[in-house]
Amino acid sequence: MTRHFQNEIERLKKKILRMAAMAEESVQKSVRAAAERNAVLAEEVIRFDLEIDMREIEVEEECLKILALHQPVAADLRYIVAVLKINNDLERIADLATNIAKRSRDLAGINDRRTPFDLDTLLKLTLAMVRSSVDALVNQDVDRAQQVRCDDDRIDELHETAYETVTREITNNPERTVYLLNLLSISRNLERIADHATNIAEDVIYMIEGEIVRHQWVAGRS
Amino acid sequence: MTRHFQNEIERLKKKILRMAAMAEESVQKSVRAAAERNAVLAEEVIRFDLEIDMREIEVEEECLKILALHQPVAADLRYIVAVLKINNDLERIADLATNIAKRSRDLAGINDRRTPFDLDTLLKLTLAMVRSSVDALVNQDVDRAQQVRCDDDRIDELHETAYETVTREITNNPERTVYLLNLLSISRNLERIADHATNIAEDVIYMIEGEIVRHQWVAGRS
Repeated sequence: MTRHFQNEIERLKKKILRMAAMAEESVQKSVRAAAERNAVLAEEVIRFDLEIDMREIEVEEECLKILALHQPVAADLRYIVAVLKINNDLERIADLATNIAKRSRDLAGINDRRTPFDLDTLLKLTLAMVRSSVDALVNQDVDRAQQVRCDDDRIDELHETAYETVTREITNNPERTVYLLNLLSISRNLERIADHATNIAEDVIYMIEGEIVRHQWVAGRS
Repeated sequence: MTRHFQNEIERLKKKILRMAAMAEESVQKSVRAAAERNAVLAEEVIRFDLEIDMREIEVEEECLKILALHQPVAADLRYIVAVLKINNDLERIADLATNIAKRSRDLAGINDRRTPFDLDTLLKLTLAMVRSSVDALVNQDVDRAQQVRCDDDRIDELHETAYETVTREITNNPERTVYLLNLLSISRNLERIADHATNIAEDVIYMIEGEIVRHQWVAGRS
């Protein structure tokens, strides 16, 4: 590995970690906006998304530059391809956090606070999964990545329960429909964020072990 | 370009087109299952997904092999990276078609046929977008790809209207909640399929012109 190539890889690593930190910040803030019905924080998340979009393109161009200039093979090639995919998942996570922020903004205007399902656990667990997938990436930690894959099943269950509870609640209290559908939308977006965190974990495993582990799980309700 | 490299590119092209045809078939069948409330066809789509998952991994491994063996640059490199991304979008499209199939299976068991929003146009337009994005890929047609990007706005509007209509209908007829939420789920999955078709169109433009055109649109309700 030439010194020049090593430097480029180091710079790429910093960039993808910065991207990961930004996506995590978006999720964390959107989750807080949802829990607190905080419209101001929600707006902040929505504005921030543009910056993350720009960052995604920057990381992708960096990957292409390295592929073209250094033509890496074996583990180095796998690393760059994994970064390309993780970059894409992080951008999608930030997009979904923006969706949560939009629904939180809507919720802030509704005078109803009762949540008929365990949104709190869903919020905490999803945020923890995003953090763990990013940590697994930073520390190249396969065990941590495997844990993220297991947590995803729990999120699917929680969202499934949310769906059933909301359906029942709406049937009994139709005047709460708008409010409850906003809550359900937050649950659904969390479930999708968890899916992307799982993708990242799977790409980290692929990055380190060269083994493709995706498509070994079953998707939940959507 | 060596003869060997040319052969590999040709083989990759055939594989990604086969993958595209499979994803399109899934969407087409799931859309028909939804329109006809056909549980048998829905089951077929769900089973077919496993095959598409396998195919995705095959295409990705082929891309990595070409990158490692031939170390392409410039337009060739851009082509391989675009195929990697399009492959991923096609697999996601097939996943979403599976979601539609599952909701269609649920709908088949409910004795209610009235759809309060224009599901038919949504079904047709999304299927047309998937077809156009695949055609743009096959024929390397930038104009066709640009058209897909425009159509996406129309889909977002249709889904937004579906969301509002379903919310109102549920409030007035709470006994139809389960049925209407299944319909809304189909609309949402169609909107997400259209998003992925747009991603493919944007990657086709990037493949041909080297210009990144994504992040120039606004996401709808989700």
